[in-house]
Amino acid sequence: MITRGDCETMDRTDALAAARDRFLLPADVIYLDGNSLGALPARTAARLADAVTQQWGQGLIRSWNAAGWVNLPEQLGRKIAGLLGAADNEVIVADSTSINIFKLLAGALTMAGGERGRRVILSERGNFPTDLYMSQGLNSLLGDIYELRLVDGNIENAFDATTAVALITQVDYCSGRLHDMKRLNAKAREAGTRIVWDLSHSAGAVPVALNDDGAELAVGCGYKYLNGGPGAPAFAYLAASLQRDFPTPLSGWFGHAAPFAFDTNYRPAPGIERLQCGTPSVLAMLALAVGLETFDGISMQDLRQKSLRLSDLFWTLMDAHCGPFGFSCVSPREHADRGSQLSFAHEHAYPVMQALIDRGVIGDFRQPNLLRFGFTPLYLRFADMYDAVMIIRAVMATEAWAEPRYAQRNRVT
Amino acid sequence: MITRGDCETMDRTDALAAARDRFLLPADVIYLDGNSLGALPARTAARLADAVTQQWGQGLIRSWNAAGWVNLPEQLGRKIAGLLGAADNEVIVADSTSINIFKLLAGALTMAGGERGRRVILSERGNFPTDLYMSQGLNSLLGDIYELRLVDGNIENAFDATTAVALITQVDYCSGRLHDMKRLNAKAREAGTRIVWDLSHSAGAVPVALNDDGAELAVGCGYKYLNGGPGAPAFAYLAASLQRDFPTPLSGWFGHAAPFAFDTNYRPAPGIERLQCGTPSVLAMLALAVGLETFDGISMQDLRQKSLRLSDLFWTLMDAHCGPFGFSCVSPREHADRGSQLSFAHEHAYPVMQALIDRGVIGDFRQPNLLRFGFTPLYLRFADMYDAVMIIRAVMATEAWAEPRYAQRNRVT
Repeated sequence: MITRGDCETMDRTDALAAARDRFLLPADVIYLDGNSLGALPARTAARLADAVTQQWGQGLIRSWNAAGWVNLPEQLGRKIAGLLGAADNEVIVADSTSINIFKLLAGALTMAGGERGRRVILSERGNFPTDLYMSQGLNSLLGDIYELRLVDGNIENAFDATTAVALITQVDYCSGRLHDMKRLNAKAREAGTRIVWDLSHSAGAVPVALNDDGAELAVGCGYKYLNGGPGAPAFAYLAASLQRDFPTPLSGWFGHAAPFAFDTNYRPAPGIERLQCGTPSVLAMLALAVGLETFDGISMQDLRQKSLRLSDLFWTLMDAHCGPFGFSCVSPREHADRGSQLSFAHEHAYPVMQALIDRGVIGDFRQPNLLRFGFTPLYLRFADMYDAVMIIRAVMATEAWAEPRYAQRNRVT
Repeated sequence: MITRGDCETMDRTDALAAARDRFLLPADVIYLDGNSLGALPARTAARLADAVTQQWGQGLIRSWNAAGWVNLPEQLGRKIAGLLGAADNEVIVADSTSINIFKLLAGALTMAGGERGRRVILSERGNFPTDLYMSQGLNSLLGDIYELRLVDGNIENAFDATTAVALITQVDYCSGRLHDMKRLNAKAREAGTRIVWDLSHSAGAVPVALNDDGAELAVGCGYKYLNGGPGAPAFAYLAASLQRDFPTPLSGWFGHAAPFAFDTNYRPAPGIERLQCGTPSVLAMLALAVGLETFDGISMQDLRQKSLRLSDLFWTLMDAHCGPFGFSCVSPREHADRGSQLSFAHEHAYPVMQALIDRGVIGDFRQPNLLRFGFTPLYLRFADMYDAVMIIRAVMATEAWAEPRYAQRNRVT
């Protein structure tokens, strides 16, 4: 039986333990929801205060040049590229994940448009809703000429000569299932098509090797593992080989080759900059910049190792202490198949999660019956796993979750 | 001849003089570029610090409900609706102006799509570039089935039975020319079509009466006169009569009727909420919230009156003191035809503007030869007009602008 003392020992020998100081966390909270909203980096408040009072307040419009605001989308893109195995000029920060899905999906469909018979947009039924919704909206705008084919089982076998493009999320938001990117890219290539990857639950959570694994198109989120703050700007990856001809349907002025020439006709920037659209929020980008700095000097391999140790420990402790309470883990057991989260099905998942949150163990509920726990190695301790499971056990043993107030639904759940 | 003393007298009797205290402005600056980036409200820094340290840092994911983050797009929309003569449920804050143009233009084209022969997207050649670029990108995505017809003269006479939709900016970013919204909406209605209005240089600058003037579709910017900070979120207006059936091509999960039901199929929210797309930046929205509060208790009619007095004074002083230096005002003389800015053509506009900025008179340069000055009645004084013109006179009289460093182009100009 693993004791709290054992967990404390793991923390004492944890090479990443010091990274927790890069964050400000509430004293009474075990935060297992960094996969939904990353925690606050210690430097964000000071950096934003300076941006507001000095750069905006004193510099005013001059700060677009003087404070380098205009370079932020590319600068942050380079930093994210480093986390994802992409080249410096292949990632840009812009808009939201949803908007970036639209850009890449529309561009990829246009590129595939020459080929007759390719009329299927391939995805998974369990994909994150906004991915499906954006595909539906795009298809509807194009006159419903495509079929959105949602695969229930293994998507690997679904690629064929009718596939115009596939939209695949690498780590499933419900189960944490991790796709083998290299293998799927090869399948897509064989079938003569392309994948738009959604890396929202991958970036900063698992090692990603976009170039080595043959990825051409990807989007992802800034507010989960990247710690960029609520609703942080998203990113888009476009392989260098596609950049010259990639059609950009959301052709806003920030993606123009010379935005301040004020030309009448759109002429896309030659590189990744073309995936920008309107004027980006500088404050939101600066917060994301600080979020990205929390990864400085830390290898994704070390992070991955700790992530798996944390989640294995949590799972083991859940089995040991909460076995009788009806939890059933729906996440893949194999490391190679799992991201940085675990989800447990439970008949009373919603009120149980509310009771846990009330006691400082913050995960989240996902439809229809999942308690979801995310593991963020930069700021979680092994002892946190132990303490969280003890609180879960207490909530179950005392039936504290059955209090009527925990059944009340929030708008965001 | 108007003296500085006369201007000081105007300031002493100015009913809006106290509003300047709602802002923090650099001591050595006369800021005539609030039409490009609004000045910093006095309360923004404290509000953002609280949002970062308390709402995000302590509240973490819980703040989507507990701090009301989820309501911000509608809440800010209601506030903007009040400035624009729209009903409470007709404006939402979301994304960027460019993205919102795409949404409304695509939706309006889809609505017009049933009618044969309507294949013209009407706009003005002098429209702000991103408006034209977004139209071009949309048309290209749709297979170039539309013609983007750019009018050079009076757009009023260009509406006809071929017009699918018109995209018109109410206040021209170069000249400050103000369109009569009611008159143009009537022309559009007669021709059986609709106008998507861009209010980027109208909102917070001139009285707008969307409902009374028969407007159905509009977008606008949060970072100019609304003082929301660099790259602040934009807004979209959709008349209540259109909301039930308006097709939303950028159908992200925040526009879904029940985002957290995680349905597989997109089902738009019944009202204005459907114009949301991805997760919005909370920090950027909170900064915009403070910007909007700078209008509290101030009528747009009073603002308009002061705006015209400031700009008339500036123009008069320019004529009186800078007449020999080759400036030529390109803005309409009539109040009814002018927004809240003046632009002066000058052979050496670029270096002259750089020399002025260097001396604390901040306006901006616009292609090909314009010095642009914006007038923001909330924080500008009549004496500022006098001082600015004296500095312009000095720069011209001494030929200070001819220093080689002022000819160097910035990335953002």
